[in-house]
Amino acid sequence: MAITVDYRWMIPPLGAEVVHSYRARVRAVHEDLTARRRAGKLPFYDLPRQDLSGIEGYVERMKGGFKTLVVLGIGGSSLGLLSLNAALRTPFPALEPSPRLVVLDNVDPVRVGSFLDALDPRETLLNVITKSGDTAETMASFLVFRKWFTDALGAKSAAERMVATTDRKKGALRKIVDEGGLASFEVPDGVGGRFSVLTPVGLLPAALLGIDIRGLLSGAAAMDGRLASGELAENPAYFGAVLHRVAYREGRRISVMFAYSDQLFLLADWYRQLWAESLGKRFALDGSVAAVGPTPVKALGVTDQHSQVQLYKEGPDDKVYTFLAVEKFSRTIPIPAAGAGLDAIGYLGGHTLNELFAAERRATEVALSRAGRPVSRIVFPEVTAHNVGEYYHLLEVMTVAAGALFGIDPLDQPGVEEGKQYAYGIMGRPGYEEKRRELEKTAAGEPRLLFGPPENA
Amino acid sequence: MAITVDYRWMIPPLGAEVVHSYRARVRAVHEDLTARRRAGKLPFYDLPRQDLSGIEGYVERMKGGFKTLVVLGIGGSSLGLLSLNAALRTPFPALEPSPRLVVLDNVDPVRVGSFLDALDPRETLLNVITKSGDTAETMASFLVFRKWFTDALGAKSAAERMVATTDRKKGALRKIVDEGGLASFEVPDGVGGRFSVLTPVGLLPAALLGIDIRGLLSGAAAMDGRLASGELAENPAYFGAVLHRVAYREGRRISVMFAYSDQLFLLADWYRQLWAESLGKRFALDGSVAAVGPTPVKALGVTDQHSQVQLYKEGPDDKVYTFLAVEKFSRTIPIPAAGAGLDAIGYLGGHTLNELFAAERRATEVALSRAGRPVSRIVFPEVTAHNVGEYYHLLEVMTVAAGALFGIDPLDQPGVEEGKQYAYGIMGRPGYEEKRRELEKTAAGEPRLLFGPPENA
Repeated sequence: MAITVDYRWMIPPLGAEVVHSYRARVRAVHEDLTARRRAGKLPFYDLPRQDLSGIEGYVERMKGGFKTLVVLGIGGSSLGLLSLNAALRTPFPALEPSPRLVVLDNVDPVRVGSFLDALDPRETLLNVITKSGDTAETMASFLVFRKWFTDALGAKSAAERMVATTDRKKGALRKIVDEGGLASFEVPDGVGGRFSVLTPVGLLPAALLGIDIRGLLSGAAAMDGRLASGELAENPAYFGAVLHRVAYREGRRISVMFAYSDQLFLLADWYRQLWAESLGKRFALDGSVAAVGPTPVKALGVTDQHSQVQLYKEGPDDKVYTFLAVEKFSRTIPIPAAGAGLDAIGYLGGHTLNELFAAERRATEVALSRAGRPVSRIVFPEVTAHNVGEYYHLLEVMTVAAGALFGIDPLDQPGVEEGKQYAYGIMGRPGYEEKRRELEKTAAGEPRLLFGPPENA
Repeated sequence: MAITVDYRWMIPPLGAEVVHSYRARVRAVHEDLTARRRAGKLPFYDLPRQDLSGIEGYVERMKGGFKTLVVLGIGGSSLGLLSLNAALRTPFPALEPSPRLVVLDNVDPVRVGSFLDALDPRETLLNVITKSGDTAETMASFLVFRKWFTDALGAKSAAERMVATTDRKKGALRKIVDEGGLASFEVPDGVGGRFSVLTPVGLLPAALLGIDIRGLLSGAAAMDGRLASGELAENPAYFGAVLHRVAYREGRRISVMFAYSDQLFLLADWYRQLWAESLGKRFALDGSVAAVGPTPVKALGVTDQHSQVQLYKEGPDDKVYTFLAVEKFSRTIPIPAAGAGLDAIGYLGGHTLNELFAAERRATEVALSRAGRPVSRIVFPEVTAHNVGEYYHLLEVMTVAAGALFGIDPLDQPGVEEGKQYAYGIMGRPGYEEKRRELEKTAAGEPRLLFGPPENA
C-alpha cells in the first residue's frame, strides 16, 4: 500500500487562486529538473534503480560477526540511518534488538566516553561515514576508535572491524582505507549528504541491521512514478512545494512536521536537515541577496500537544503544518475500564490506545484548521520499508522543486564554511592562523552584560 | 560554582538604547511580581525552601525495591524529569544505570506495547503524574498499567507498586488513590505543570533515581538571590526577558536554544514547553487580540551544525540564539595522531574531543554573531544538580517577566482546550456529542487535493 498526501486543509487559508497561479512556473521547473536529471546532474533521482550486490555481499560476509554496529557520521551521514532505524527497527534505544545500533553523531566527550566504556571491540563493527573524508568531528571520533580497536585487537584484526563510506578518490579517509586495507563503499558523485539516505551512506548500515533495503528502493521507485507529471494538480511533490512557497511568502516561515508516531519522529528530524540546509540561503541564483528559508521544526504527537499546541493554536499565524499519520500500528493496546464512580475518565474503557492516539491527532488537526492554520497530512498505511522509501523520495523531489520556486540552489551549503574555518583556527590547523586572529579580535561587547557568579560564590 | 549568563553579543544587533528604554517598565514588572509573590499567587518562587521530608521518607522506604521506574505523565509532568535524568544521570537511554527510568509520555501503542513486553511487574515501580487527575493520555496509560500489575501480582501488591502525584483533592486519580490505598504526593496549588519541576512532580522520581534533589533546590535558591533586584542592569532574568521582547518586536520570532552538551539538550526541551505554552497567547491581559508568542526551537551542538547552521547563518534574520555551554565535562577524550601524510586531519592529534567540542561552539557563536545574529550564552561550570537548579529558576523568572512584557498571562493555557474537547467527542465522552458533530461537519476541502495511492497500487 502507498502513502497518501492530503492537502485538502491547506487551500482555505492559502487561497486556491494564488496556488494555481503557479501552474506555468511548475511546468518550467519540471522541464528544468527533467533536463538536469537526464544530463546526470541530479543523480539522487535514480538511486532507486541502483545495484545492491556490493552492499548485500558485504552484509552476507559480516552476518553474525558483531553484536553492535557503531556508526560515525554527522548530518547527512547519520540522520537518514537514524530515521530508518527508528521507523523500521525501534525508536527506543533502550530496546534495540541485536545487532544494536550506536550512532555517534556528536563529539561530546561524555557521549563518546560513555559508549567506549560500554562497548566490546571484539563484538563491534564500525562504519565511518564522511563524503569528504575530512569532516573534523567524524575523523576525530574515528581516530579515537581506530586506536581503541588497535590497542585491543592489533592492527590487522582492527582493520577487519572497520568499514568506510566515503568519496571514491578524495580525502583523508580514502587514503586511510587504501593504506590500511579497510573495506569501503562509495558515496556517489553528485549526491549531497542530505540526499544520500538511499546510497551506501544509509543503505549499508541499514542492511547490516537487517532492514529491508530492497523495500526502501521499491518505495522510492514507486513514488518516482507518481511524480512523473509536470502538471501542478497531478504531482504531490510540486503541489507541496508550491503550498510551502505560498505559505512562506505570506509570513508563515516556520514549517512544523508533527509526527503522530514515535517511529516516524526521526523522519521529521531527517526532513529538518533536508529543508533547512537546502532552502536556507543568502544568495539567490541570480546573485542577489535573498536571505530566505523556512525554519523546519519537528514535533511529536501526542506529546507536544502538551507543550507546543497552545502556541500553535493561539500564537502568531506564522506556521504551516505537516502531520505524519499511521493507519495501522504493529500493536493494539486495549484500555481497561476505570471502574465505578470515575466519570471523568469512564469514557476511556473499551477503547484502545490506538483509538485514543488517532482521536487526539484528528482533534488537533481540526482545532488548528478551524483556527485558520494550513494543515497537510502524509498518511502511512503502515510503517514499512516501502512506505518510508516513498516518503524520502517525495520529500527530496519536493525540496528541489521548492529550491527552484525560492530561486536558490538547494544543493549547496556555503554558510557552514566560515564556522569550520574558525574552528580550524582555534584547533591550530595550518593555514587558518588569520581566522584565529579574526576570531580573537571579535569584540566581546560590554563587560557589564556578563552576569557572572556573585563574588561570594 | 554558579552559572554565568552572557549577553555581550546581544546588544550590537538589538541596540543598547531600545533595551535600556525598558528600565522603568522592568521596575514596574518587578514590583508587580514581588507583590504577587508576597500574596502567595506565584508559589513557584518559593519552591526552593520546601520541606523534603515526605519525599525523602518515601524514597528511603522504597530503596532497592525496584529496578525500573516507570513514569506516566505528559508535558509539565514529564519534561522536567526527562531533563533532570539526562543532565544528572545519563542522556543515553541505552546506558541507563539501575534503577532505570522509562517515561511513557506518549500513547503511541507501539511505545506502550514495546515497554510492557520488556518490563517485569515484580521489579517495576510506577509513578503516575497528573495535576488534574483526569488527563486522558496519562490516565489511559495508567488503566493499562494498573491491570498489568493487578493481573500479575494481585490487587494488594499492585497497589504497593504504584505512587501517584496529583491534586490534593480533585480528580479521578485522587479518587483512585483514596479508594485503593495508593501512596501519593501533592502538586502544590497554584504551580502549573511547566513550573512544577521542583515540586514532587519532578523531585519524587528524581529522588527515586538517586538524583541530588537538595542540590537542585540549593541552586534554585542561590539563583533566587541573584534575581532580587528590580534594576534591569542587575537582573539577568529581567535582562533576558527584555532582550527576547525586543528581538521579537523586530521580527526575530524564533528562539533557538542551542545546547552544546548531550546532557543539557533536554533542558532545551523543557524550555521549549515553558516558553511556548507561557508566551503563545491569543488574548492580551486587556482582552484585546494579541496572537503573540516566540517559537522556541531546540538544537544540539555540534550535531545540528551539520543540519541547521546553514539556515541560521544565511537564512532570514528571524532568530535569537541562546547557547548552553559546559566548561568542564566529566570525561576527557584525547584524539590520537592521524599518522603521516594525512595533512587534512593532522591538526586533530594531540588535542582532546573536549577542545574540539569547545572550538566548534565558539566558532559557531562567532560566525552567527558576525552575521549580525543576536547570540547569548548560559555557561555551566559543570553539569551539577546545583547548576541545573539555577537554570530552572532563572528561566522560570525570565518567563513570568517576559509574560508581563508581552502583555499576556504566562500562567494559563486556554488554547489546548478545544482540541481536548474534539478528542472527547471522538472518544464518546458524555457531554461532548456536539463537539463530535462540529468536527464531522468540518469541510474536508476539495477532493482533488487528496493524492491517494495510484489505482493500480
